Amino acid sequence: MSKQEVNKVVLAYSGGLDTSVILKWLEDVYNCEVVTFTADLGQGEEVEPAREKARSYGIKEIYIDDLKEEFVRDFVFPMFRANTIYEGEYLLGTSIARPLISKRLIEIANETGADAISHGATGKGNDQVRFELGAYALKPDVKIIAPWREWDLTSRDSLLAYAEKAGIAVEMKRGKKSPYSMDANLLHISYEGDILEDPWVEPEEDMWRWSVSPEAAPSEPTYIELEYKGGDIIAIDGQAMSPATVLAELNKIGGANGIGRADIVENRYVGMKARGCYETPGGTIMLKAHRAIESITLDREVTHLKDELMPRYASLIYNGYWWSPEREMLQTMINASQITVNGRIRLKLYKGNVIVVGRESASNSLFDENIATFEDDGGAYDQKDAEGFIKLNALRMRIAARKRS
Amino acid sequence: MSKQEVNKVVLAYSGGLDTSVILKWLEDVYNCEVVTFTADLGQGEEVEPAREKARSYGIKEIYIDDLKEEFVRDFVFPMFRANTIYEGEYLLGTSIARPLISKRLIEIANETGADAISHGATGKGNDQVRFELGAYALKPDVKIIAPWREWDLTSRDSLLAYAEKAGIAVEMKRGKKSPYSMDANLLHISYEGDILEDPWVEPEEDMWRWSVSPEAAPSEPTYIELEYKGGDIIAIDGQAMSPATVLAELNKIGGANGIGRADIVENRYVGMKARGCYETPGGTIMLKAHRAIESITLDREVTHLKDELMPRYASLIYNGYWWSPEREMLQTMINASQITVNGRIRLKLYKGNVIVVGRESASNSLFDENIATFEDDGGAYDQKDAEGFIKLNALRMRIAARKRS
Amino acid sequence: MSKQEVNKVVLAYSGGLDTSVILKWLEDVYNCEVVTFTADLGQGEEVEPAREKARSYGIKEIYIDDLKEEFVRDFVFPMFRANTIYEGEYLLGTSIARPLISKRLIEIANETGADAISHGATGKGNDQVRFELGAYALKPDVKIIAPWREWDLTSRDSLLAYAEKAGIAVEMKRGKKSPYSMDANLLHISYEGDILEDPWVEPEEDMWRWSVSPEAAPSEPTYIELEYKGGDIIAIDGQAMSPATVLAELNKIGGANGIGRADIVENRYVGMKARGCYETPGGTIMLKAHRAIESITLDREVTHLKDELMPRYASLIYNGYWWSPEREMLQTMINASQITVNGRIRLKLYKGNVIVVGRESASNSLFDENIATFEDDGGAYDQKDAEGFIKLNALRMRIAARKRS
Amino acid sequence: MSKQEVNKVVLAYSGGLDTSVILKWLEDVYNCEVVTFTADLGQGEEVEPAREKARSYGIKEIYIDDLKEEFVRDFVFPMFRANTIYEGEYLLGTSIARPLISKRLIEIANETGADAISHGATGKGNDQVRFELGAYALKPDVKIIAPWREWDLTSRDSLLAYAEKAGIAVEMKRGKKSPYSMDANLLHISYEGDILEDPWVEPEEDMWRWSVSPEAAPSEPTYIELEYKGGDIIAIDGQAMSPATVLAELNKIGGANGIGRADIVENRYVGMKARGCYETPGGTIMLKAHRAIESITLDREVTHLKDELMPRYASLIYNGYWWSPEREMLQTMINASQITVNGRIRLKLYKGNVIVVGRESASNSLFDENIATFEDDGGAYDQKDAEGFIKLNALRMRIAARKRS
Repeated sequence: MSKQEVNKVVLAYSGGLDTSVILKWLEDVYNCEVVTFTADLGQGEEVEPAREKARSYGIKEIYIDDLKEEFVRDFVFPMFRANTIYEGEYLLGTSIARPLISKRLIEIANETGADAISHGATGKGNDQVRFELGAYALKPDVKIIAPWREWDLTSRDSLLAYAEKAGIAVEMKRGKKSPYSMDANLLHISYEGDILEDPWVEPEEDMWRWSVSPEAAPSEPTYIELEYKGGDIIAIDGQAMSPATVLAELNKIGGANGIGRADIVENRYVGMKARGCYETPGGTIMLKAHRAIESITLDREVTHLKDELMPRYASLIYNGYWWSPEREMLQTMINASQITVNGRIRLKLYKGNVIVVGRESASNSLFDENIATFEDDGGAYDQKDAEGFIKLNALRMRIAARKRS
Repeated sequence: MSKQEVNKVVLAYSGGLDTSVILKWLEDVYNCEVVTFTADLGQGEEVEPAREKARSYGIKEIYIDDLKEEFVRDFVFPMFRANTIYEGEYLLGTSIARPLISKRLIEIANETGADAISHGATGKGNDQVRFELGAYALKPDVKIIAPWREWDLTSRDSLLAYAEKAGIAVEMKRGKKSPYSMDANLLHISYEGDILEDPWVEPEEDMWRWSVSPEAAPSEPTYIELEYKGGDIIAIDGQAMSPATVLAELNKIGGANGIGRADIVENRYVGMKARGCYETPGGTIMLKAHRAIESITLDREVTHLKDELMPRYASLIYNGYWWSPEREMLQTMINASQITVNGRIRLKLYKGNVIVVGRESASNSLFDENIATFEDDGGAYDQKDAEGFIKLNALRMRIAARKRS
Repeated sequence: MSKQEVNKVVLAYSGGLDTSVILKWLEDVYNCEVVTFTADLGQGEEVEPAREKARSYGIKEIYIDDLKEEFVRDFVFPMFRANTIYEGEYLLGTSIARPLISKRLIEIANETGADAISHGATGKGNDQVRFELGAYALKPDVKIIAPWREWDLTSRDSLLAYAEKAGIAVEMKRGKKSPYSMDANLLHISYEGDILEDPWVEPEEDMWRWSVSPEAAPSEPTYIELEYKGGDIIAIDGQAMSPATVLAELNKIGGANGIGRADIVENRYVGMKARGCYETPGGTIMLKAHRAIESITLDREVTHLKDELMPRYASLIYNGYWWSPEREMLQTMINASQITVNGRIRLKLYKGNVIVVGRESASNSLFDENIATFEDDGGAYDQKDAEGFIKLNALRMRIAARKRS
Repeated sequence: MSKQEVNKVVLAYSGGLDTSVILKWLEDVYNCEVVTFTADLGQGEEVEPAREKARSYGIKEIYIDDLKEEFVRDFVFPMFRANTIYEGEYLLGTSIARPLISKRLIEIANETGADAISHGATGKGNDQVRFELGAYALKPDVKIIAPWREWDLTSRDSLLAYAEKAGIAVEMKRGKKSPYSMDANLLHISYEGDILEDPWVEPEEDMWRWSVSPEAAPSEPTYIELEYKGGDIIAIDGQAMSPATVLAELNKIGGANGIGRADIVENRYVGMKARGCYETPGGTIMLKAHRAIESITLDREVTHLKDELMPRYASLIYNGYWWSPEREMLQTMINASQITVNGRIRLKLYKGNVIVVGRESASNSLFDENIATFEDDGGAYDQKDAEGFIKLNALRMRIAARKRS
């Protein structure tokens, strides 16, 4: 395969060894100018060092963006409006960050006149698909360079050799390097690889970084109250907060209470099953609480329709189709359903458990105590109506049963 | 509404006050013979006393059946093959027992030559619908008497007065009577009414009967291993067990570890929202474990198709359509998917948490470590394939984007 | 059942015998004031005579509305955006008119201070459900009087006797009275009953009123060109037209070419199967043409999502849930998909056939001749991409097949 | 890309120029033995000449199979049980033949010890995907050679030059060669390319080969009667026939009556829109008739569930996933629904129209005239039941409306 002609490329750059090697490799192999883009999505690592490094490699156009608010407001919150969960277990923490990175890569390409983008995702995973589908959808003729699919630096040794040759300092991190492949943002941190590749093996406790274990969590529960407006959390314990602040706060509270660990085998879009461990403290709380606020404010059939479409919506996000017309179409519908999702949820958090202990909606509750009550309802509901309801619902089955007999 | 002509009626009889009043009322009002049917579904109360009571009221045909194995084998297990959960939270413990009761009521009606059945469910709830849809589907011309929709004994006082007049002993249970409306079987126990009618109020700890609270659960985790065959659990910790024994055992272990409480507002089929609390210790374990065994043995698209159809399947059961052709049609498909769902799941149970710590399937694992690995895969997967995969998946979006620009 | 207290009732009044008897019966039995409402929905009969009749019965508040434009613009066109068809055959001509009538009944009730509405639909059909679900959704505490479910005028003779007693002139229509139960509006005319009750019997040619038979249609085809904007037809053969004019014109052209007859057995919401014959000339043309314009302007996955949701959307309309939140939620999504559905469709109409012979969209065509061509595409599409596309799509099946072998 | 090592390859061989060139090219480039496989799927051309040609090129293992019965029995009929139609218009004539060819290619590979298969489908179409997904699913480690994606014979001239060099006689067919790319089997014949690449252009009449135009069809209708068993046609006009005979006969009758032409723009799995014209006379009749027999023998909810899943099932077949576990799972369900689909359908065929004029099922009709009738039903249906049915179905909307007001 002959190399494409590339003039200028925007690289999703973390500042770490791998993307530094990619930076140099792009210059070497494509003989092109490199623009670096580093995003703060709440991964919990400083992004400014990436500026220094990029500068040290001679990069002239360096983008470092704090995208935390945009990430939560325009990606995480809309996704949670659908109670989204992939294959019953995965809260899509990595998946939902990728479309925002694609969007910024393309915006920067347009601003800097770059004709290509590049990223450090491997050819085996979902992330390459998510980055590239997003990029193509937003700028159809962009060139995409995925070094891991192209180069021959497939062993750690060859990568280090290349780094040395290219003058890239290989920092030895203090303490033991994590053996896991990790990804983090404000929604979650993920772990793959190493001993996790055997699905029978339990992860070691020291792998987890964002949460204490349920065993180590406090022996007293924590109660919190979330306020919803239009399906999104706007305040915790009465204190109004921005979207990113809400999520950061819930991560803190959830992680301290041993909440949000998941250990699963999932089906990748590229065709294989893979083991992943995830910590999503705030997201785990949000999923439970959102279902609870919907339980009193959303119509039954709207709820069921959302439930039936959710797995498909989740797959769209998992597979990288955030910027597709079908995701946007579904989102329009999901958003329309959330107008009445206003109110408060009270939660008890205790050693890994998220327990709903109260729901209330002054303006939009569809819970009608007069009708629901086991006590005398004063005629709010006429029990005799049930007979006709049952008989007509049974009619088709009765006709069929008579036929059979 | 004029009363139907009834010769003999089979009554779902618990032996308690309400159904004893119904028994007498049926004789009084319909002037018909009553056959009683009492089922042991694992509700945890003796069923034999019902025989004595029925006899004391002069009943000649008394059916007392131990249905626990049939219940779990033919109803609970098939339902769990679909990872069934209603509205994201409810494990359908009451719903799934009703079709079995309908089936037995009709079988007994056929055996005894009865032309009617009767039950003690109110006109506000789902259970009347479940009993009656099942009965009509199985015996289309059966007459159904639902006293709560017909009589005028709508207050507790009038009911007690009727009981006294009819010579029904009103036993005063020792200790405080539960203020809740409850239902129990081997899968769960449910609570409704009283303070639960305010969805902002947290249930009191002494309401719960089957599980300790997470706080009160042991501070050491319990590890168990479940063996699956065809999607059903056939052994716990290497010990083969019948379906009902499996569920009883999981209830015991789960309840001891604070597992399986749910507190929700659900949408009833008859149209209102209602608050319910549920304890489903074994079912909660089974749901998590079944998803885990499927995660390594089931094809991705089969998994996703099951996920998308599950909410509808759950609604069918919730709404009382177990004996409908559409439920049977879905079941055929679900069952067909389970042939390969064989293997073992290892779980850690700790203070309300069910944590999957191992999955293994000697015969049917689709988890291919060679392909999934982050290490050198020796060519099992060609990363270059991903480029074409992405490009063709992106094509329609690229064409559209070019059009827009 | 004791009668409800009613002060003033709005009656959906056709001016015919049945609703005239209802008018009198309402006054007699409920001792209430009656407001009549007669709608011109394009049924092809004069509505003004209804005013005279109502006046002659002493009615003071008489509403006669021309709703043709609203009907097509706000009901028919939105429904056709989804390519809606019930059970593969029925274009929902009756179903889609009912929610508009409900809406006007309630608006008039609110204007006139009426506390009830009434209609002439029987207790066996879908229309009662459609009228009443709509009315309850729009005015939850409205009282509804459905005389056919209440009164004892169940034979023709008793009805005529009542009419005579009440001074209602029974007009003998010229010529043979139709033996069919019919309903008409600008979208269709329907026939039920009489010989149609045997599904093996072919309808007689003289039953059909709006279309010639294919045999009797011209032996030369008619070509027409439809212009779409936002999924709706805005011009025929280059001539801009209002929605109702579009539909009237297509009915004329279609009917003249033997288009739009359907003869089906359908499943009613109330539980039985029923035979119906329908003439929907314009609608039949619109369905075919709308699919065609979407075929070049709509994304593949959006199309497929719409196709999968259509049967449910059709059932909602058939069952009477137009004014439900779930229909509105689906409509939001459907409408959002139609923004790009702009362009022209050329049709050949010939003896019952609607044949698409051209589609074009200057602004929104996603048909890319350069990519689609069998000729040299100049590199617009790289055939080598297909290999990776296929291999990764096959991966899960290959892993499974290796496992099996 | 370096060539794979191949020892023996099974080639899907038509005997025409293109696959003859492929035959030689495989020997030249891969230096491997070639086994030819030619199938009679009812395409209407002799297959025996392929034997002579293959022999003349020195092929030793030559397979020529009459697969017509297997094709209709195991592929076409099962597909029609679902009323399958892709994007509302396409009856999947090409798509449904591909999995059978894949199956035979793999069976022959296994019999002959071949390690590879090859086909003549291009890299732009769906057929390559269908062939290869099937092959991989059935023999996961088979090597696949798709010459059109590999070679440089991309112009007609280079192909002809190669043929001449290889000693392949280029037969000049008598008369004008068709300018269209065509595919035929017992279910349909398709046309693509040439003037069809402009979706505004109407096909010329002389393109169509299997049907007369509606204009040219007889001016007298033809009536036929189809007998169904288990959802499949087993007799026409009382005469029992094998599956392939049924389809051949319906093609003849349908084609003579101008039935079954379609002219559409469809969405290919590989990402672009493409224009195709199809003649499917028998299939068009079967679709209409199957819906009609289901209309009296299938439960409403089963019908609706089938309708909702059909588009997905159609996409699976269109996209080449016949041999996938999800298609098999859906098929299990579809087949289970067909047990009661027995009876007779009477059709009137006239100038392109397929009109159902009678349906009957002695054993399984769910059409109950007593209940459906507009006449006195003698109490079979109690109209009063409708009130409760409507009220409880309206309850959730009434509660919501009260809340809003």
